[in-house]
Amino acid sequence: MEMKVITLGEVMMRLSTPGHERFLQSDQFNIVYGGAEANVSVSLAQWGLEAQHVTVFPPHDLGKAATQYLRQMGVGIDHVFSAPGRLGLYFLENGAMQRSSKIIYDRFDSAFANFDASHVDWDQVFDGAAWFHWTGITPALSQNAADMTLAALKAAHARGVKISGDINYRRNLWQYGKGPLDVMPELIQYTHVVVAGLADFENCMDIKASSYEDACDAAKKAFPQIKYITTTERDSISASENGLHAVLWNGKELLKSKAYQMTHIVDRVGGGDAYMAGLIYGLLQHEDQEALEFAVAASVLKHSIPGDANLVSLDEVQALVRGEHVGKLLR
Amino acid sequence: MEMKVITLGEVMMRLSTPGHERFLQSDQFNIVYGGAEANVSVSLAQWGLEAQHVTVFPPHDLGKAATQYLRQMGVGIDHVFSAPGRLGLYFLENGAMQRSSKIIYDRFDSAFANFDASHVDWDQVFDGAAWFHWTGITPALSQNAADMTLAALKAAHARGVKISGDINYRRNLWQYGKGPLDVMPELIQYTHVVVAGLADFENCMDIKASSYEDACDAAKKAFPQIKYITTTERDSISASENGLHAVLWNGKELLKSKAYQMTHIVDRVGGGDAYMAGLIYGLLQHEDQEALEFAVAASVLKHSIPGDANLVSLDEVQALVRGEHVGKLLR
Amino acid sequence: MEMKVITLGEVMMRLSTPGHERFLQSDQFNIVYGGAEANVSVSLAQWGLEAQHVTVFPPHDLGKAATQYLRQMGVGIDHVFSAPGRLGLYFLENGAMQRSSKIIYDRFDSAFANFDASHVDWDQVFDGAAWFHWTGITPALSQNAADMTLAALKAAHARGVKISGDINYRRNLWQYGKGPLDVMPELIQYTHVVVAGLADFENCMDIKASSYEDACDAAKKAFPQIKYITTTERDSISASENGLHAVLWNGKELLKSKAYQMTHIVDRVGGGDAYMAGLIYGLLQHEDQEALEFAVAASVLKHSIPGDANLVSLDEVQALVRGEHVGKLLR
Amino acid sequence: MEMKVITLGEVMMRLSTPGHERFLQSDQFNIVYGGAEANVSVSLAQWGLEAQHVTVFPPHDLGKAATQYLRQMGVGIDHVFSAPGRLGLYFLENGAMQRSSKIIYDRFDSAFANFDASHVDWDQVFDGAAWFHWTGITPALSQNAADMTLAALKAAHARGVKISGDINYRRNLWQYGKGPLDVMPELIQYTHVVVAGLADFENCMDIKASSYEDACDAAKKAFPQIKYITTTERDSISASENGLHAVLWNGKELLKSKAYQMTHIVDRVGGGDAYMAGLIYGLLQHEDQEALEFAVAASVLKHSIPGDANLVSLDEVQALVRGEHVGKLLR
Amino acid sequence: MEMKVITLGEVMMRLSTPGHERFLQSDQFNIVYGGAEANVSVSLAQWGLEAQHVTVFPPHDLGKAATQYLRQMGVGIDHVFSAPGRLGLYFLENGAMQRSSKIIYDRFDSAFANFDASHVDWDQVFDGAAWFHWTGITPALSQNAADMTLAALKAAHARGVKISGDINYRRNLWQYGKGPLDVMPELIQYTHVVVAGLADFENCMDIKASSYEDACDAAKKAFPQIKYITTTERDSISASENGLHAVLWNGKELLKSKAYQMTHIVDRVGGGDAYMAGLIYGLLQHEDQEALEFAVAASVLKHSIPGDANLVSLDEVQALVRGEHVGKLLR
Amino acid sequence: MEMKVITLGEVMMRLSTPGHERFLQSDQFNIVYGGAEANVSVSLAQWGLEAQHVTVFPPHDLGKAATQYLRQMGVGIDHVFSAPGRLGLYFLENGAMQRSSKIIYDRFDSAFANFDASHVDWDQVFDGAAWFHWTGITPALSQNAADMTLAALKAAHARGVKISGDINYRRNLWQYGKGPLDVMPELIQYTHVVVAGLADFENCMDIKASSYEDACDAAKKAFPQIKYITTTERDSISASENGLHAVLWNGKELLKSKAYQMTHIVDRVGGGDAYMAGLIYGLLQHEDQEALEFAVAASVLKHSIPGDANLVSLDEVQALVRGEHVGKLLR
Repeated sequence: MEMKVITLGEVMMRLSTPGHERFLQSDQFNIVYGGAEANVSVSLAQWGLEAQHVTVFPPHDLGKAATQYLRQMGVGIDHVFSAPGRLGLYFLENGAMQRSSKIIYDRFDSAFANFDASHVDWDQVFDGAAWFHWTGITPALSQNAADMTLAALKAAHARGVKISGDINYRRNLWQYGKGPLDVMPELIQYTHVVVAGLADFENCMDIKASSYEDACDAAKKAFPQIKYITTTERDSISASENGLHAVLWNGKELLKSKAYQMTHIVDRVGGGDAYMAGLIYGLLQHEDQEALEFAVAASVLKHSIPGDANLVSLDEVQALVRGEHVGKLLR
Repeated sequence: MEMKVITLGEVMMRLSTPGHERFLQSDQFNIVYGGAEANVSVSLAQWGLEAQHVTVFPPHDLGKAATQYLRQMGVGIDHVFSAPGRLGLYFLENGAMQRSSKIIYDRFDSAFANFDASHVDWDQVFDGAAWFHWTGITPALSQNAADMTLAALKAAHARGVKISGDINYRRNLWQYGKGPLDVMPELIQYTHVVVAGLADFENCMDIKASSYEDACDAAKKAFPQIKYITTTERDSISASENGLHAVLWNGKELLKSKAYQMTHIVDRVGGGDAYMAGLIYGLLQHEDQEALEFAVAASVLKHSIPGDANLVSLDEVQALVRGEHVGKLLR
Repeated sequence: MEMKVITLGEVMMRLSTPGHERFLQSDQFNIVYGGAEANVSVSLAQWGLEAQHVTVFPPHDLGKAATQYLRQMGVGIDHVFSAPGRLGLYFLENGAMQRSSKIIYDRFDSAFANFDASHVDWDQVFDGAAWFHWTGITPALSQNAADMTLAALKAAHARGVKISGDINYRRNLWQYGKGPLDVMPELIQYTHVVVAGLADFENCMDIKASSYEDACDAAKKAFPQIKYITTTERDSISASENGLHAVLWNGKELLKSKAYQMTHIVDRVGGGDAYMAGLIYGLLQHEDQEALEFAVAASVLKHSIPGDANLVSLDEVQALVRGEHVGKLLR
Repeated sequence: MEMKVITLGEVMMRLSTPGHERFLQSDQFNIVYGGAEANVSVSLAQWGLEAQHVTVFPPHDLGKAATQYLRQMGVGIDHVFSAPGRLGLYFLENGAMQRSSKIIYDRFDSAFANFDASHVDWDQVFDGAAWFHWTGITPALSQNAADMTLAALKAAHARGVKISGDINYRRNLWQYGKGPLDVMPELIQYTHVVVAGLADFENCMDIKASSYEDACDAAKKAFPQIKYITTTERDSISASENGLHAVLWNGKELLKSKAYQMTHIVDRVGGGDAYMAGLIYGLLQHEDQEALEFAVAASVLKHSIPGDANLVSLDEVQALVRGEHVGKLLR
Repeated sequence: MEMKVITLGEVMMRLSTPGHERFLQSDQFNIVYGGAEANVSVSLAQWGLEAQHVTVFPPHDLGKAATQYLRQMGVGIDHVFSAPGRLGLYFLENGAMQRSSKIIYDRFDSAFANFDASHVDWDQVFDGAAWFHWTGITPALSQNAADMTLAALKAAHARGVKISGDINYRRNLWQYGKGPLDVMPELIQYTHVVVAGLADFENCMDIKASSYEDACDAAKKAFPQIKYITTTERDSISASENGLHAVLWNGKELLKSKAYQMTHIVDRVGGGDAYMAGLIYGLLQHEDQEALEFAVAASVLKHSIPGDANLVSLDEVQALVRGEHVGKLLR
Repeated sequence: MEMKVITLGEVMMRLSTPGHERFLQSDQFNIVYGGAEANVSVSLAQWGLEAQHVTVFPPHDLGKAATQYLRQMGVGIDHVFSAPGRLGLYFLENGAMQRSSKIIYDRFDSAFANFDASHVDWDQVFDGAAWFHWTGITPALSQNAADMTLAALKAAHARGVKISGDINYRRNLWQYGKGPLDVMPELIQYTHVVVAGLADFENCMDIKASSYEDACDAAKKAFPQIKYITTTERDSISASENGLHAVLWNGKELLKSKAYQMTHIVDRVGGGDAYMAGLIYGLLQHEDQEALEFAVAASVLKHSIPGDANLVSLDEVQALVRGEHVGKLLR
């Protein structure tokens, strides 16, 4: 399959303590790179799609290393821009048992957040694209980033590209003077596949509902272009064990995936992005229920892999959907 | 809160194999420092108390490194003495599943064990102190160490300092010609909060009882200054999974804590010391039941952290007591 | 006990990614050595038996390192031959949760597979030996290796040595023009203790049966020298959690071992070899049921240890059989 | 000796690639902490002086870890403030041979740089202090940091504290609208011991001179309170080999130290700070030439130690001054 | 500059012991990928050229990881083929002082060596290419590989592409029945820039000469299309210290580069490939002497970087050519 | 060659900080095992001799690991005894440049030092032996160890075994009430090859001489059985660079070896033991001058290898003696 997907968003250097060490005791960080949208591109590239990630890095060696990472993972860098500023960072401490995992973000004033995208040739970016994916993290970073998101959405919309958006509301962001209700509704109105939990509906669409289906109905009324609304539901027994399933509303019904028990979580960061990538892949290829099952199986496998990226093959995801050789030793 | 706690005991260099490697296969050791009493001071320092640890190190670089460790963890070193001799060591191999963890002690003839404390100015040590904590490990090491413990207890008692003692009977120690019944009763009679299991009652207080409450009653009769007796109860399903709860006898009733299931243990060494620290903190701040819950929650969190030290914040312990965001990803 | 056991087979360098890293993300390999038969010798050497492993290494430093490994683990190298060629390799990626573990073999054209054993003095090899162990992997590698297995079996048989064989059929091997039914029956007819699952009966003995007991009966008819047939049964809940028990058919009845739940598997490679070693040790020492329990307990402990080798002591296996201090902290 | 030294400046988390790996290839960082002024305090604490470092950290775990580092190294944290913002970072790639070492700073908008020090009780800070050390890095960071430096200098001056300042001009700093000539002269006029190279004289004191002695004379005229001017002179043969000596002008003559050849440099970061610390220690204890020799020997030893901190003992520095057991194996 | 360079050759997984550990003592390998020709492409990609590497990998995860490596380093993978077989390996032990470095090759029967290239569309490969680079390693591996080299050379020649060839004679290769004189002359006759030492002239061109210039003259007579002949000259003082310079014969004169002393070599593997890349870059951009200086400076810097790849920027090479900030600390 | 050499002495666990980290900053130790005499056996085993090391280990896992180490390195363990007590330890910090290396010994009261050897069957130990090697470290440890040395010497002497002794006087040992002059002369009178520097002559033989030859003459007079006296001479330029040569007095003349410059020392511990092993090997095989050159070349190569053991092959030593491919890259 040669379908082209465009993702847009900041890529941060992730610095995580080894094993279960706490920030207070570690003298080493493992380095990977990640960002909610780039993680989606990495997944899709593993599965053979052409994925191009639009982002901005500073021109120094850390920015080059981040660019190299995208290439290494199979993601296209045709639209990776270079601009002065910092490389966004996040620090991760992996929890265990009852102890929570912790992220300290250090991403303000990054080259990405400060980037003026007014000169970007969006037509070139979306040339030949089948899908565009964005998240609510980007417009939360800065006015520049919000403007870039809107410009991208308009251009994608104009070319008939399918659009997915992960609302992903985070209170700690949104420090540049605007709130999600000032910005998100305009962006959502270009979006066909929306990832949102109940809190996201309220914070970003001003929709208060007592059930997920009611929320979906209300969202459809407010944003009639929406085709799908979806979310994962996580049962956090401990940092080491979670239950996971997902629901997908397709305008007609609320489909529910198989539920998985994840009993020895290696790294849960990027689990939602793996789901999103699975859903994009699934909706491009399959019926709704199949797409949903593919997406949640992809997300489950992510939890077994260190780093942000879901380095699993199509075969592995499909085998888990079928329940085949789960956890075996494959020779 | 500015309360000052004094702890007394040997601090050993702990040499542990990485991950789940056995002694027979490892060519690397991770280094931390630990000792039952110093571990208590480290916990208390994390929670904002002033903790001073009384101990002895050899004057060479390993002794300096151990001193640095105490400072790093926030513990005061005003009463850390330097004397010739070895630095006590212990070697740790972390178990997994049905395989037990193993400790090889190499602590005989240490600078601490051989230290003649007769010149220590205990009044200076206990100046302004609210609490003193000792364990049964120290008097088991040598006559010198037993003498030091008694001298400290007498001085603390004379100044009206609250005193806790963790009986912690270990058969392999007590090699200097005396047994626990020769030494421990005199020490226990200065102690208000006693940590003891049924075997400790028998071995160190000559109290045989069929129930924990009976043992507590008998202990109170023999040692009327005792205010609290407590112990943790551990259900060892495997090296990786334990149940944990604790009981606290306050002279009136036997309080029982919430029971926790610890399903992915990272490092159980120091779990009892974390409990002790939690109880000291709790009894200084709270009602009995609250103190007990704080202590057991602190102990649970310790099991998720590599090393002897319980590097958790007050917020984290209190959140676990309340059952909040357990095992979540905190951003 | 001074019993001598001979094992025969290839020893490979095993290159595994650290922790749960995937091949696609790791820039480091941990090195150990392993092979189904050598793993048996290593186990037996841990338990005080004299174990000599017959194998072939190339004369370069990697071959020397492999030889050193055998010596380090207590295995005799009197019959380790040096011949030109490659050192066989295998690459291992450890799974977690629902994600399978993966092995990539790179063992073709090895010094072992290409070794012409016609000059080996088998009488010297089996001098004083009580037991000989082989597996179905060796005759699957090459005509030379199949010839060597047969020559060894004939010599062992001629000297009255007890013989065990782990059928261990693997489809990916058998690339030299012969199939298992061309080769295995002749080898099995010298074998007293056969490890075989239902698929092995079919592939290597042409025995199709609906129950394990029926298969055993049929095998006994075809190979009347067989005294014991056995297999482990693994319930793969995930890569991190398996159930394990074993059955042992002794000509009269099908004995069943205690079943263990292995909830935090560290490394499952070599689990079957640990079982085999346990059974050899057990049958040399004990009654059938005891032998079986020893074997399965040994296998369980293996799953807690990184590497191919089961570095556990007799005491540890026996304690697990008795259910003593399972998963405790031994000081 | 119980002399108290106060240092003031930002402490950054330093993230360096292991060994000689480049930023473009490393997936791990080693973590230490460092800053020109804190490095001085760490040195002095190693030598038995009381050193208190004045700085600001964010209240999150990385800030706590930095605080712990200072304590670990023996530095007092009585005047470490907590304020919102980032922890300053710097990334280090160690060069080798002809390849240069590289630092990427990421320190803008740190908690330190943004700290409003107007409420600091400087009298308390300097109570009992014998010496105060500052560098030109601090006033280069922000108006707030420049204000803090000036306030500290005035307070130190008022109490008769000896003051040293390392001019340390760096073009990449000074981004807040002022230049060094706007700020530095006022600060220098409180300073008795000035570290400056010829470029520093020009950039920060507007003194152009053809020889170092002329520059010193001119500086003395402009800043009559100056007692000593000093600089190290480094002959960079390669990243692995440097020559090093220093000069000290004491108002009367230009003393020159012994010249050292450093042939296998491990880590040159902090070499200048080690010199500064040595000079402070030396001037507090010795005649000028002795002080100079102590300082340059201390600096030489720093180049053999990974990290920013000069973890050498008094004995080691003094032995190098005397040329004793240089590079031997001390048992 | 947008010039496209094509390289052809096997890429091996390189497994090296950490630091200065010997094969006999290491239990870890560091993984990178390398091959004489791919190393050239990696260099050129660092300097902004479009580099496409033609090679073959097996379809398993190790082959994918090798492909990812090329992409990470900026090399195009449009002509990376997938075919069954092994991934070639080489094991490296880094020497020190008088102790030599050691390589154990394990590359026979690789997917690359066994690849039948008859279906490759060479016109597509060379479309838009300015330069093609091959080495004498490829035709030494197998008949298939020799055939592929010839086919590539004919196609490149037909399109007027500039061609460089590094003769690189290695006795241990050439195991498939032909010798270098059977194969190399035909390949050399398409080559404009030849890298050859005196032994290469003799072994691969049957040219015996007493001086390098005489050899060049003879080669020019035999292969009149040759424009440049070049070689590096290495003075091996020890594994840690080498002298290096290079000569370039341009048909008129024998140019000699500046000579460098490399006193603390980190990794000398790939030093020749770095030179080759520098020469290609230089000849595409500069006059002969400049090209030569660029090439040898590039090679020098390679010796300071772990791995096969010369991860240096244009700026860094050019600065070394100019002798600027050599070995300094760049902030 | 099948010559059997017996060595006698304590083997310690060596715990060294990684790279150039100081004790004060490291949180990891690398583990190897070493002892002056065992190091000799390891060398000889590398070169194909049968080497048996007589020593004592405690029965716990660390003692087993040390035993495994000897086996791994090819040394026979037929006379390794098990007895209660500690495993001797030493801690090593590797110096660099002008900074010295440091060893902290922690070997008192070890199982070896406390071992009562009166029951050892020395005839069995020396059965078939050609050479016995001891050092002055053993009799310095304890009366028991001195007694064991004497008993071994008498038994070796009685069987006509050649005997070498490395005087190796260390002031820090000899804590059990006797001095070297009380003990060493009796031991030296059984010794044919004596390693001694001028200080050793004085401290252990009461021979004061102004030249090495005079000392040798005097020693020969006092101990007429002596055939050879030898020592290495080290020129310590820095911890990273030493000159090394050796002299060998054979009763007739003082032979002097080639002098080597070791410019990038990796690990100098065990350099003298490597020399001793080389000399034993050489004297068993060669003329005196050849033996001397072999020994010093072996010692030089040791300095390039981490750990106590000289893991070099015969070929490598012989090539260095001939000056062949020194520091080259051997493929």
